[in-house]
Amino acid sequence: MNVKILLEYDGTNYSGWQRQKNAIAIQEVVEKAIFKVTGEKVNVIGAGRTDAGVHARGQVANFFTNCRIPVARLPYAINSHLPEDIVVKGAEVVPDDFHARYSAKAKVYTYSIYNAPFPSPLLRRYSYFFPKPLNIEAMERAAKAFIGVHDFAAFRASGSSVKSSVRNIKRLEVKKQGDLVIIEVEADGFLYNMVRIIAGTLLEVGAGKRDPEEIPSVIRSRDRERAGVTLPAHGLCLEKVIY
Amino acid sequence: MNVKILLEYDGTNYSGWQRQKNAIAIQEVVEKAIFKVTGEKVNVIGAGRTDAGVHARGQVANFFTNCRIPVARLPYAINSHLPEDIVVKGAEVVPDDFHARYSAKAKVYTYSIYNAPFPSPLLRRYSYFFPKPLNIEAMERAAKAFIGVHDFAAFRASGSSVKSSVRNIKRLEVKKQGDLVIIEVEADGFLYNMVRIIAGTLLEVGAGKRDPEEIPSVIRSRDRERAGVTLPAHGLCLEKVIY
Repeated sequence: MNVKILLEYDGTNYSGWQRQKNAIAIQEVVEKAIFKVTGEKVNVIGAGRTDAGVHARGQVANFFTNCRIPVARLPYAINSHLPEDIVVKGAEVVPDDFHARYSAKAKVYTYSIYNAPFPSPLLRRYSYFFPKPLNIEAMERAAKAFIGVHDFAAFRASGSSVKSSVRNIKRLEVKKQGDLVIIEVEADGFLYNMVRIIAGTLLEVGAGKRDPEEIPSVIRSRDRERAGVTLPAHGLCLEKVIY
Repeated sequence: MNVKILLEYDGTNYSGWQRQKNAIAIQEVVEKAIFKVTGEKVNVIGAGRTDAGVHARGQVANFFTNCRIPVARLPYAINSHLPEDIVVKGAEVVPDDFHARYSAKAKVYTYSIYNAPFPSPLLRRYSYFFPKPLNIEAMERAAKAFIGVHDFAAFRASGSSVKSSVRNIKRLEVKKQGDLVIIEVEADGFLYNMVRIIAGTLLEVGAGKRDPEEIPSVIRSRDRERAGVTLPAHGLCLEKVIY
């Protein structure tokens, strides 16, 4: 049977979701835990290939198993073999053609900026510290320009090789929660580093280094050099995968 | 001059605020950082002697110095010698008779319970995981019984030797924020482990193991055995000291 699982993890100590040489990946840790439960060497397919240091509150994955443990008990069984920074929060049997990545209709990511004069020890692992004041209203205006179907070639890591860089951003919101500025973005798919570059571009707008009105021309340029910096991984979190 | 500083820290890796044998204390780390800035061996007096693993968003401390660095620059200077889990967020010159502990009129602590079917990797360091459903309304009713001037001998670690166990709880609120249940308490002072025992007692009420109506008689008993368990340190945070 094909099992879909929901995962939360703190990416701080991992090389990212995907198996790597010389570094421990979340996928690998989850596969080993499943092996301990089922005795099967499964391939766990993740919806989002989160990078090193990126977190997830709602990663989705699937794997095939002949295990007879009731699916409702599986999260408890797998969690008993997982470290405390990775947790399976749910499991259900899905049709065989369900593929965590290819079946996904959309994904939601957040990028958290801690915007206060001094860094926060309690939020340091899950947000990027930026001490200068941010103009949220300007960031909101800039965010609107990203929404819709565009070629986001300017907002992907240079050197990435995916054929099409056209994506549909369905929602891009900038929210202030206390000292946190949270950028929340929903799209049908994301290019490599896309959220971190959009967040870096919006941060530059918020800091007054860039005009919100210039975003449409940056998108049209398809030129990575015209967009903002790639913000660090630890502010990024995969919130939800929509099927 | 007498300098008052405001601190935030992640207590996970420390033996608590106060200097200890065989374990590193936050006070000690801060004193060493101040030494590197001023060349002076100062005694940093903290308002709350937070225990091992307890966090602070608003600890206050004071120390005497002859240092000529402008006080507004001091946090930056001290922070450059602090690890990232301890941050000075402010500094000001105060009258010589200001004492971070004795001058405090009240302190505010929160105790955070993560109440969901599975633990949260992202909140695990700052909240206590409790998977069974909680009756928040019953917890709120129980909380009201603590408010006011009472002898809280039933709510202090057995063996503590402070003379009077009478304290004034000015505020005790139970708030639900998503999957977090946050107990916020303001009092003129706290007995040893008092917040963690109150939180444990309220948790037992929420879980249906204890009637909210019995709180007044538990308080009157002055008997530690009648109160609830002491919840672990990592859910506790010193939020604010009021002068």
